[in-house]
Amino acid sequence: MATAVSPLAPKSYPEMPELEGVQFSTAEAGIKYKGRTDVLLAKMVEGTTAAGVFTRSKCPSAPVDWCRSVLKSGTARGLLVNSGNANAFTGVKGKSAVALSAKIAASALGCEENQIYLASTGVIGEPLDAEKFSPVIDELASMSKPTGWLDAAKAIMTTDTYPKIATVSVELDGKTIVINGMAKGAGMIAPDMATMLSFIFTDAAIDAHALQDLLSSQTEASFNSVTVDSDTSTSDTVLLFATGAAKARGIEAVQSSDDPRFPVLQAALGDLMQNLAQQVAKDGEGARKFVEVRVEGAQDNASAKVIALSIANSPLVKTAVAGEDANWGRVVMAVGKAGEPADRDRLAIWFGDIRVAVNGERDPDYSEEAASEVMKHDEIIIRVDLGLGSGENRVWTCDLTKEYVAINGDYRS
Amino acid sequence: MATAVSPLAPKSYPEMPELEGVQFSTAEAGIKYKGRTDVLLAKMVEGTTAAGVFTRSKCPSAPVDWCRSVLKSGTARGLLVNSGNANAFTGVKGKSAVALSAKIAASALGCEENQIYLASTGVIGEPLDAEKFSPVIDELASMSKPTGWLDAAKAIMTTDTYPKIATVSVELDGKTIVINGMAKGAGMIAPDMATMLSFIFTDAAIDAHALQDLLSSQTEASFNSVTVDSDTSTSDTVLLFATGAAKARGIEAVQSSDDPRFPVLQAALGDLMQNLAQQVAKDGEGARKFVEVRVEGAQDNASAKVIALSIANSPLVKTAVAGEDANWGRVVMAVGKAGEPADRDRLAIWFGDIRVAVNGERDPDYSEEAASEVMKHDEIIIRVDLGLGSGENRVWTCDLTKEYVAINGDYRS
Repeated sequence: MATAVSPLAPKSYPEMPELEGVQFSTAEAGIKYKGRTDVLLAKMVEGTTAAGVFTRSKCPSAPVDWCRSVLKSGTARGLLVNSGNANAFTGVKGKSAVALSAKIAASALGCEENQIYLASTGVIGEPLDAEKFSPVIDELASMSKPTGWLDAAKAIMTTDTYPKIATVSVELDGKTIVINGMAKGAGMIAPDMATMLSFIFTDAAIDAHALQDLLSSQTEASFNSVTVDSDTSTSDTVLLFATGAAKARGIEAVQSSDDPRFPVLQAALGDLMQNLAQQVAKDGEGARKFVEVRVEGAQDNASAKVIALSIANSPLVKTAVAGEDANWGRVVMAVGKAGEPADRDRLAIWFGDIRVAVNGERDPDYSEEAASEVMKHDEIIIRVDLGLGSGENRVWTCDLTKEYVAINGDYRS
Repeated sequence: MATAVSPLAPKSYPEMPELEGVQFSTAEAGIKYKGRTDVLLAKMVEGTTAAGVFTRSKCPSAPVDWCRSVLKSGTARGLLVNSGNANAFTGVKGKSAVALSAKIAASALGCEENQIYLASTGVIGEPLDAEKFSPVIDELASMSKPTGWLDAAKAIMTTDTYPKIATVSVELDGKTIVINGMAKGAGMIAPDMATMLSFIFTDAAIDAHALQDLLSSQTEASFNSVTVDSDTSTSDTVLLFATGAAKARGIEAVQSSDDPRFPVLQAALGDLMQNLAQQVAKDGEGARKFVEVRVEGAQDNASAKVIALSIANSPLVKTAVAGEDANWGRVVMAVGKAGEPADRDRLAIWFGDIRVAVNGERDPDYSEEAASEVMKHDEIIIRVDLGLGSGENRVWTCDLTKEYVAINGDYRS
């Protein structure tokens, strides 16, 4: 496991405002390792609604199956997460493990089992011993507190080198509501669904269907726009919970996406999700550089995204970034292999503000020194103009370093 | 540049039989570096037919455009290759460079310019100075010899650590014809088109259309079934030349794919191309392990191939192989992300002969020690049975090591 914190880690953590209706607690359940916090319980008040988006893997984990199923209830009282074992590809044992996990949590929280959401991350293919939750669940349920955001974010980490949290506030009906979120990522981060685990909470009251619309509308431009290594986890899960506690402060419930306050919530949630998604890329395994790939002039936005991801996922582009090499020839290669409409002789490419190629060849004013200077930065923008249409998109990724290979060449030991 | 020879390199080179109708010569033209053999000329007799398959990149190199165009003639007298500069993404300069290259070669060989085939490999995005061929072309044309296969294969290398040659002989009309080939690869090897440069020659007489059918029929299971890093070059080129010299020995020309001798040629050419394709994977940049990924029980053969490539291209699978870690959970992940029909609970997975997973979970008889032992080998077979249908396929790849990152993080310097 990596121990050094990513050089791209935020310099400080945001102050997370208290968010009425949810409380956290963490424990050491010894799921995989001893002496390591590996369980998170989030306790939510009655009336909390829930929404989720999940991995598109054809082999999803048992907890993903479980969440998809209980989401039909639309309500939530508890979220139980472990960071030792993904409970993925565990067959009938996996199904028993999620059922038992939910039973244990529901019993401690005094709610229905279908109000318990589950997420697991860690090694896949190994049975999860859900009985390990039993000895710690009562303490988890009783010692939870509303201020444990950073501890909660730490408890869900695996090969992450720093906890990921973010907060936004927004005015509804002249009063403030809060959206707080956390994420874990690191490896196996790719669309679709982009990622990792992320749990987002708001004290606004939002009908379950509207909440799902809200979450779904912001996923494409955030978690589905980040890639570390093109590999997609079997466990990717983003859950959004609305406790509704703000109703007591006179903020009416949002009943549907037609509510005039819906776009306000979309903008705020979008900011928060993009913030978390970027933090995930910045903590990509072995990452030393954060890269934003912008594609414009494409046939349409969808085409721009395919090309942007082709660039962001190219091992040759990613190693060039690691080597601080302004190797735009590899960007051309990645555009070409995407299979989307492109005209070699109309391409223009920038590293940062330095245009290195134009009209299908090296920019006559190209200075390798200036481009190399850009590559020394921690955060690099690679921009491509296809010169075909008005489609544009952007994705985020990181470089591919020897450290990535080291981390993943010996993950299980 | 890497200097150590891949541990997967063949222990010896085959004796290449003389192949009537083609002669080779090499030179140092100083295309990019001084003091390095970087040009190959193959001189072919009148009557030679030609066929080709090329990169599917939307941004192909100027030589690829050139070859596609001259292939319409169906005949060949010369092949000029340089291994310093890919002449890719070089705009109008690239077009002038190929035209001038062909003119220089045609003049030296006394043939038409559209009988000259061109291939370039090396850095992309830099103009190629074709004038550099002029000082060496007459010597190249005059000193060529029919026995220079290994030297020819060496002259086209870039980051390859060993030259790649292969030969097969086959009986037609009771007499022997020869097929000899060479390839270069190393990085940026992925379908479609798989590869790199490969030049294959036979002394059989084969009509140009039949020759194209022959080559196209064997590409999918060979060069389009090998991947190093999922990146696809702008320059991928496979050319097949039939000198027809065997006609003088009484072997009638093959006029079409209906000729009863066509399947015999297909089998022989297929063997040779698979041999060369495997050599390319074994010389993947930084490769320490050769991996054959076999997928069976898929919905159909095409689906099996998509899944096999998803496994073979997964950075997490490839780093696990590098770490000699029998991490079949990552194989599940790669099956899941492929997007093809799969049922988690029917999957079975083997490393070598060791079945590690069955019916959607860990094989009860699974021995990590036995599986780890398999992972120590130089050549590893990863086999997946989806349990859905009778579709099957196999692809070849290599592991992902720190050396890959080192080679590609500083390629241009």
